[in-house]
Amino acid sequence: MTRADVPARPGRPRSARAEKAILEATVDLLAEEAGVAAVSMEAVAARAGVGKTTIYRRWPNKEKLIVDALATLKQPIPELSGQSVREDLVALARAIGHEQAGKHSRCHWNLLGGADRYPELLDRYRREVIEPRREVIRTVLRRGMRTGELRGDLDCEMVIAMLVGSMTLQARAPAPLKTLPDDFAEQAVDALLHGIAT
Amino acid sequence: MTRADVPARPGRPRSARAEKAILEATVDLLAEEAGVAAVSMEAVAARAGVGKTTIYRRWPNKEKLIVDALATLKQPIPELSGQSVREDLVALARAIGHEQAGKHSRCHWNLLGGADRYPELLDRYRREVIEPRREVIRTVLRRGMRTGELRGDLDCEMVIAMLVGSMTLQARAPAPLKTLPDDFAEQAVDALLHGIAT
Repeated sequence: MTRADVPARPGRPRSARAEKAILEATVDLLAEEAGVAAVSMEAVAARAGVGKTTIYRRWPNKEKLIVDALATLKQPIPELSGQSVREDLVALARAIGHEQAGKHSRCHWNLLGGADRYPELLDRYRREVIEPRREVIRTVLRRGMRTGELRGDLDCEMVIAMLVGSMTLQARAPAPLKTLPDDFAEQAVDALLHGIAT
Repeated sequence: MTRADVPARPGRPRSARAEKAILEATVDLLAEEAGVAAVSMEAVAARAGVGKTTIYRRWPNKEKLIVDALATLKQPIPELSGQSVREDLVALARAIGHEQAGKHSRCHWNLLGGADRYPELLDRYRREVIEPRREVIRTVLRRGMRTGELRGDLDCEMVIAMLVGSMTLQARAPAPLKTLPDDFAEQAVDALLHGIAT
């Protein structure tokens, strides 16, 4: 059987529309103040205007539904030129910054706020959504160490924490906290590359 | 009238105990999944075992109560040696890392998750809790620029975002996301000072 014979999902147009409505309803509920607790199959069905069976046909539980819904909020991983590490890091930093706006950040806060209560959900989110994106950054950093653009003794995890941390703190901050310039991605990458000491 | 004649708060020991119970109850409610929405004068009174009047005597509304409760979760600003910018930044970074554990981070997530709905609360939190701490970092950075330890053209706000962002992303990450070493504060400050490029 070739790959074309096996649709990834039982996807007639009608069920594609239902799927979109279900994922959007999940995001909306998750972005509300009660977070993960607000998401139930009943609440999602009611908001999406579908029957619960339609949801269960595709998602056996709310954890899987939430992870898929969160994935829809992620920007696609940007195309990297591969020309210079600086350029690639700026592209990645910009993508991180862009995806933090609005609902994404509220969902993310609410997910972490309930992290103690939903360890499996968090673990799946990490494996399926966060980790593939971190791996792209790691690949760029390792390339830089190989080409000599970066110091050879870098701890990639630390650099990732600095890059992602700077971009998320800046981009997620609600209006009165947000006082940073539009070219923050470039500035942050340059500060990270060249340091702030004399 | 001298300063000693004016107690900062109408504070007999009994009301000091009540105040502590009220602030703790507020933190507990805020750390729960519903966040700011879970905090009401009624709920705080019930959990603290005091009458609502006792709360209103000191806090006219829940926003002021929440800001004071959040302030109790902050580590005191560390004593800085003032000997070297590196040392002072490491001390500040460590303090930021320490205060992120447990309830603090859940309260913070929940506060930001509801930020759209409570702009005044967030604004007061920024002015009374966040800003004084940022100002300490700014003072260290400005001193470093004056002494020549740091580049003279730094954008302090950007450096603060990088330092605070790295430390909070690292420290707040729930267990499966947290893979960074204990000496992360030193490592992050050194990477920030000297850069990761060759």
